[in-house]
Amino acid sequence: MQIKDKSGLTIVPVPSLRRLTIYLPYLKELSSGVTEYVSATTIARALGYIPIQVRKDIAYTGITGKPRRGYPISELVNQLEVFLGWKSYKNTFLVGAGNLGRAIMGYPGFKDCGLQIVAAFDADPAKIGTRLFGIEILSMDEFKTLVKRMGVQLGIITAPEQSAQEIADIMVDAGIHGIWNFAPVKLNIPDDVIVQNENLASSLTVLSKKLDQIV
Amino acid sequence: MQIKDKSGLTIVPVPSLRRLTIYLPYLKELSSGVTEYVSATTIARALGYIPIQVRKDIAYTGITGKPRRGYPISELVNQLEVFLGWKSYKNTFLVGAGNLGRAIMGYPGFKDCGLQIVAAFDADPAKIGTRLFGIEILSMDEFKTLVKRMGVQLGIITAPEQSAQEIADIMVDAGIHGIWNFAPVKLNIPDDVIVQNENLASSLTVLSKKLDQIV
Repeated sequence: MQIKDKSGLTIVPVPSLRRLTIYLPYLKELSSGVTEYVSATTIARALGYIPIQVRKDIAYTGITGKPRRGYPISELVNQLEVFLGWKSYKNTFLVGAGNLGRAIMGYPGFKDCGLQIVAAFDADPAKIGTRLFGIEILSMDEFKTLVKRMGVQLGIITAPEQSAQEIADIMVDAGIHGIWNFAPVKLNIPDDVIVQNENLASSLTVLSKKLDQIV
Repeated sequence: MQIKDKSGLTIVPVPSLRRLTIYLPYLKELSSGVTEYVSATTIARALGYIPIQVRKDIAYTGITGKPRRGYPISELVNQLEVFLGWKSYKNTFLVGAGNLGRAIMGYPGFKDCGLQIVAAFDADPAKIGTRLFGIEILSMDEFKTLVKRMGVQLGIITAPEQSAQEIADIMVDAGIHGIWNFAPVKLNIPDDVIVQNENLASSLTVLSKKLDQIV
């Protein structure tokens, strides 16, 4: 049984969504070869999953395999890219052009998933007006006007925790719908704005705590 | 009821662990002020959690509050730091000194949580022998010998996905117990080695998919 949201769309469980993002790069590589079809079993074996799980995950995208042959690779790649939104570029603003911000701006992998950082913002006057990886660094004073003008939907916070809430408030006020927050702080955000927290210090702690339990 | 592992240690649920890593920076800041005690309600209100949850999370660390006064702040900070392992420095090797690797090496927040990157490794001969944020970049040929010599427990993979498995194999062979993997690939690793995957492209996709459903 699949769970539907209010508008009747199937809600894809987050673990399936995460696995689909791992199948896609593998399938893309495969599609540059001579093979035309791939089975769930082949994908599962190559990536260390179980076939039934792979089959279920792919079923969410609406594509079905052919008996004994599997999925047509190029069609599957296309469908997955559309399904995951990797083909619809989202104009994004990043706030905080420090080390982490720079890494995000320069990370080539994000372009493949539709992330288009069109401008970055920083509080440091020395950085304003400079460019990093072709992206201009601007003053926060211009943030709200530019969100409207450039149709920006997504904001990334890579600023220190002390200023994260203030930045989030500016983002919400400017009309941004989704925030990707790298600051180690819980943001106070209205319900209609989606927040994805990426707390690296907390992931590290989880790992290091597990490590303490085995060593 | 608390769940115990084989050696009788209480297993802390990951969400509690993650929340504790968020309470700690807040409490540290508080401890530099004049207040001596803090209640679960105050912490909950400041960080947007519910008091009963905060009380439960803190109970895992073994510290108990006093009626009407709450927890002694400096004792709580100390206990939390020990509990989360932020005071026991873990010698760590990082492999892949590209943009993401550089961001991890330069991120000041990790030092507070006990992460000590003692060397970095890269395949690019031009990088070998140089230093970044005081950390020397070495050749993979030296990896295994140095793991033993420096008692390294933790490895970070910030290399491209194509080389991630090969690097993981080298880490396991060298005797590393925990791997923090930033490459968007599922690693094939023996059960006694702990892996924490940090797939940023996949987090971005989850956010952007949710965004599609509301906009």
